[in-house]
Amino acid sequence: MTFLEKLLAASRRNNSLICIGLDPEYAQLPPHLHDHANPILTFNKAIIEATTDLVCAYKPNLAFYEALGPAGLSTLQETLQIIPPDIPVIGDAKRGDTPHTARQYARALFEVYGFDAVTVNPYLGRDSLQPFLDYHDKGIFIVCRTSNPGARDLQDAPVHTSPDRAMPLYEYVARQVLEWDTSGNAGLVAGATYPAQLQCIRQIAPGLPILIPGVGAQGGDLLSAARDGVDAAGERAIIAISRSIIYAGNGHDFAEVAAQTARTARDAANRARGARMQPAE
Amino acid sequence: MTFLEKLLAASRRNNSLICIGLDPEYAQLPPHLHDHANPILTFNKAIIEATTDLVCAYKPNLAFYEALGPAGLSTLQETLQIIPPDIPVIGDAKRGDTPHTARQYARALFEVYGFDAVTVNPYLGRDSLQPFLDYHDKGIFIVCRTSNPGARDLQDAPVHTSPDRAMPLYEYVARQVLEWDTSGNAGLVAGATYPAQLQCIRQIAPGLPILIPGVGAQGGDLLSAARDGVDAAGERAIIAISRSIIYAGNGHDFAEVAAQTARTARDAANRARGARMQPAE
Repeated sequence: MTFLEKLLAASRRNNSLICIGLDPEYAQLPPHLHDHANPILTFNKAIIEATTDLVCAYKPNLAFYEALGPAGLSTLQETLQIIPPDIPVIGDAKRGDTPHTARQYARALFEVYGFDAVTVNPYLGRDSLQPFLDYHDKGIFIVCRTSNPGARDLQDAPVHTSPDRAMPLYEYVARQVLEWDTSGNAGLVAGATYPAQLQCIRQIAPGLPILIPGVGAQGGDLLSAARDGVDAAGERAIIAISRSIIYAGNGHDFAEVAAQTARTARDAANRARGARMQPAE
Repeated sequence: MTFLEKLLAASRRNNSLICIGLDPEYAQLPPHLHDHANPILTFNKAIIEATTDLVCAYKPNLAFYEALGPAGLSTLQETLQIIPPDIPVIGDAKRGDTPHTARQYARALFEVYGFDAVTVNPYLGRDSLQPFLDYHDKGIFIVCRTSNPGARDLQDAPVHTSPDRAMPLYEYVARQVLEWDTSGNAGLVAGATYPAQLQCIRQIAPGLPILIPGVGAQGGDLLSAARDGVDAAGERAIIAISRSIIYAGNGHDFAEVAAQTARTARDAANRARGARMQPAE
C-alpha cells in the first residue's frame, strides 16, 4: 500500500483532513506530567489515543525531538510505536543535501524511523530529492511556499523562465516537482497563511497531496486552507495543526480537550470543503 | 571567542585550510574494526587523533549518524568529546524550518551537541535563519551554491531583481546573506565542483568564511578551491574533504594513511593559496 492510498483510506475512514503535529516542548506540557518518567512520551500517548478517530495523519517535527538529544529520538521511536498502523505518519524533517548524503537521510527517516512520508527542501535540486523519491511507497512532500513571513525572501523571487515570462520561485518549484514526480509519490508543502499562493499551487498541481501547515498559532485560516487546499474531489489536503490542538488544555483533561478541539477543526474543515464524502462505515 | 576567531587560530596554528568530513559508513570501515564494540567511534577517534595538527576544522555530517538511529547520535556526541577544544567543529545539518521550529534545531545543534558552527538552508528566508544567527559566537554557513549536478535546477534559476537586471538565485542568496549578517557570524557554502560560481561568491562576499565541499570523491579540484576560495589575505576558505581522506587506507594503518593524505592536501592547498602565512610557533 502506498502512502497516498494509506492517507486517503485514513482520511475517508475518519472523514478528516486534519493532521496533528506532534511537536512537544517540555515547558508547554500540563504541569502534572512533569514528574512522569518520560513526560513527552506520556503526553504524546494521551494525545494520540484521544485523537486516532479524528485525523488523516500525524506529523512529528524532528526538531522538537532532536532538541532533547539522542534520548529525544528514542522518545520519537516510542511515539511512532503508539500510532495505529493504519494512520500515516509524516516525518517533518525538511532535509536537503547532496545525493550521497541524502541517501543517508532517506534511510534514517524511512528505514530507521519508518515514516510513511517526509518533508524535504528543494534548494539542492532534483538529484538531492531522488534518494527519497526512489522509495516509491513513501510520500515526499517538497517544501514549496512556507507559512512564515520570511517565505517571501526567496520563495517569491521572480524567476524568468523565458525573456517574457516570470513566475515566483515557489511556482517554479511546483512546476519542477511535476516533472520530477515520475513515480507518483510527490506532494507539496504550502502554508495556510498565504491563501493566494496555496490556490496557485493547487491549480498547478491538481492531483498532488498538499501538506498545509500554519493553521492556528501561526494565524492561517482553517476554512480557506480546506477550501483552497483540496483537489476536485475534496481530498488530498492535509491540514497540519500542532500547538492550537495539543496545548488546547493544560489540566488533567488535556487529551480530551485536544480531541474536542481536533473534532471542531475537523468538522469545520469538512463544512468548508463541502463534506460530500461518507465515512467508510 | 567567536567561531571565526577559533577558525582563524586553528587554521594559522596548523597552517591549513583543510577540514575533514567525519561521515563514517559502517560498510566503508577497515574490516578489522568491524568487531569492535563501536566501530564508528573507534574509527573517528583514530582519524581525529592522527590529524589534529593538519586541519582547520572537522565537519561531521549529521545524516551519517542519524542513519544509525538514536545510538548514532550518541556516537556523534562521543566523537565530539574527542576533538580537541581548540579545533572548531562544523555540524553539517543543512537545517531550514519556520522560526518556532528553527529555534529547536538551533538549540539541538548549538546547546545539545555544542557545535561551533552549522550549515543551514536559506529557502525559508531570513526569519528561518535568525534563530541560528542569534547565537553570535557561533558560525552560520548558509548553503549558497552546492557541489551536486542538481544544484543548477534552482540555484542557477535567473532571478530578476529589476526589469533589466537578472542574476542566478545563488548569487541573489549570497547578496541577501550580506544584508542578514548583522552580527558578523555568517558564512557561505560553495561547492568546489563549480569554480566560476565559487569565484563569483568570493567576489560578492570578500570577508565571509566560505565552506567548500566537493573536493575528492565528488570531483572538485583542490587547487582551484584554495585559489578561488580564500580572501585577500589567503584565509577564510574551509576546504571540506571527507571520503578521499578518511577512506584513503583500509588496513591497520588507515589513520596514518588518512593523515598522510590530509598532509598532502594541506600542502598542495597552501602552495595554491600562496602560503604566505607562518605557523604560529
